[in-house]
Amino acid sequence: MYTHEYLYDFVKRFFMAMGCNEDDAKLIADVFIAAELRGIPSHGMIRVKDYYQLWKAGRINIRPNIRIIHETPSTAVVDGDGAIGMLAASKSMEIAIEKASKAGSGWVSTRGSNHYGIAGYYAMMALKHDMIGMSITNANPLVAPTFSVSQMMGTNPIAVAIPAGSQPPFVADFATTPIARGKLAVAEKKGEKVSFGLVQDKDGNPTDDPSVLKKGGSMLTLGGDYEHGSHKGYCLSAIVDIFSAVLSGANFGPFVPPSVAYLPLLDKKVGEGTGHFFGAMRIDAFQPAEVFKAKMDEWITTFRSARPAAGKDKVLIPGDPEREIEKRLRMEGISVLPVIVAELKEMADEMGIEFEVRG
Amino acid sequence: MYTHEYLYDFVKRFFMAMGCNEDDAKLIADVFIAAELRGIPSHGMIRVKDYYQLWKAGRINIRPNIRIIHETPSTAVVDGDGAIGMLAASKSMEIAIEKASKAGSGWVSTRGSNHYGIAGYYAMMALKHDMIGMSITNANPLVAPTFSVSQMMGTNPIAVAIPAGSQPPFVADFATTPIARGKLAVAEKKGEKVSFGLVQDKDGNPTDDPSVLKKGGSMLTLGGDYEHGSHKGYCLSAIVDIFSAVLSGANFGPFVPPSVAYLPLLDKKVGEGTGHFFGAMRIDAFQPAEVFKAKMDEWITTFRSARPAAGKDKVLIPGDPEREIEKRLRMEGISVLPVIVAELKEMADEMGIEFEVRG
Repeated sequence: MYTHEYLYDFVKRFFMAMGCNEDDAKLIADVFIAAELRGIPSHGMIRVKDYYQLWKAGRINIRPNIRIIHETPSTAVVDGDGAIGMLAASKSMEIAIEKASKAGSGWVSTRGSNHYGIAGYYAMMALKHDMIGMSITNANPLVAPTFSVSQMMGTNPIAVAIPAGSQPPFVADFATTPIARGKLAVAEKKGEKVSFGLVQDKDGNPTDDPSVLKKGGSMLTLGGDYEHGSHKGYCLSAIVDIFSAVLSGANFGPFVPPSVAYLPLLDKKVGEGTGHFFGAMRIDAFQPAEVFKAKMDEWITTFRSARPAAGKDKVLIPGDPEREIEKRLRMEGISVLPVIVAELKEMADEMGIEFEVRG
Repeated sequence: MYTHEYLYDFVKRFFMAMGCNEDDAKLIADVFIAAELRGIPSHGMIRVKDYYQLWKAGRINIRPNIRIIHETPSTAVVDGDGAIGMLAASKSMEIAIEKASKAGSGWVSTRGSNHYGIAGYYAMMALKHDMIGMSITNANPLVAPTFSVSQMMGTNPIAVAIPAGSQPPFVADFATTPIARGKLAVAEKKGEKVSFGLVQDKDGNPTDDPSVLKKGGSMLTLGGDYEHGSHKGYCLSAIVDIFSAVLSGANFGPFVPPSVAYLPLLDKKVGEGTGHFFGAMRIDAFQPAEVFKAKMDEWITTFRSARPAAGKDKVLIPGDPEREIEKRLRMEGISVLPVIVAELKEMADEMGIEFEVRG
């Protein structure tokens, strides 16, 4: 068990050892630890190795020149210059917030980036400015469009954070697939089957085999099959891809570069790196902030008081589960799987920095 | 069978007889006929009666003062003043486009409106300006959040239209439920069951009964159940509701007023009328328009060439099905159900205008 402070400090030192300056390393560490604290360990410590190996393979720019390529009062395209995704993303979101402070809203499409961790981190950056924040990204292709068996899209998440008054903020952060990629891997390791409606085999037949992605299969879009609205999940994922990559000039769809070094770079490039899209809207660009926040409180309490289904405790507001987990983990500490601890120790030794192995 | 021109002219004359000025009546007719032509008759001629009855009940403002209440360079709140939804919506989308032409993007949240027809109509208004268009709306509560049995949200659709070059535009227009409300009604009339995963009974149990909404049941969000990501559909629907109603000051969630006069107005109001949200982004606020359009062509041809699943012809691009239907119906004409024809004739007689009954 580790405190979040210990892991934060380790990640910071680790990325500084890779050559990042201290501010950059702090930011990267903050996003990794936010993933752990919010109960999304698939985007936490387990991913440090991915970045380490991309760096060793020369596929990451540790000292990038992240810059605006084109802009209007409320929009910009940012080139991440091959940066670690967290750096390109937080810089882009800052630009969106800055534009929103002047023009009412700000919208930034980012190219030349890499895997940026949890989408919600950047959306939530808007909250302290009394703004609504949005963050979406494309990702490695694993998902087939409706009626297809080709892996054409990533799990392309959408995050939206909305300030409230006395209630905690509304924070939605979800992949546009029925489940996250990581949950398939967990089921596979445990030797368990998954529900039908999550993945399909190489011919497009329903399957409950979590290892099917290795056998030419693919993930399904939110909705599962056409009869249950998979074409709507396909639309969502496509919109995320186009806003992230076509607007910015990044690689789209099947051309998104792998976020791990053990997969080779693709032969074909249609743009620069991975793409993201960020938005910020000042709430007082619509309503006086206090009026908006009071209404959000009313929205939240109204939905919280919806009648639960038989056998269910309560209706949740987006952000509730992650906030409850974070509260607990800040007190109890963060448990890291032994296999990940061993990896981190090995990498720390290679980099000549300290990392304490704990059970 | 009717030509679309005949139906357009009839709807125009009908709304003029209700007191609309000619420009307003033309616009309303255009949205109704666009629904028919795009193969969404649930939002076409069948809805003329709803507006007629709302008008007779004094629940529609035929000569509204649709106006901006608050604005910044890239945002506005519009008050629809109780207007027919098509008028408040198209005026709001025009404002979004105008703002985008100056500030790069424009975002309008609209209150005091009513049912606005097909969401895609307004998103597509952006296309001829070389802009990306967005349109979302809340609607009468029929849908339960995950873990709940309360009808808290509408089918809250999302429409996004994106220009391309030599390819037709990308046009996504979908409810955030697995299927449209209208499809349940059709199954019920035919005495058929529906798939599991679309609706639940009053206790939250799965059911295949399409008439369950009348028995205290509710529609499910996109995803169906928690295991298949229903909480993601809930997030989407909630975001649509908040952007449409909390940002604008309209009624949200369970307080959205009925779009039909045979249902009484609700006891509680939390804002003004129904809410919508519109967006426009100039593509050259990100990339030179020709570069963006060429990339969209490449995106579209890439996805069109994805390998079809066994037994499927091809992979569709959002907008393909509606465009194919429109092409056919413009030639063949529009078939209106006899029961709707009879209703239209009866209303036309009451209003003293001509309507030809055809088989």
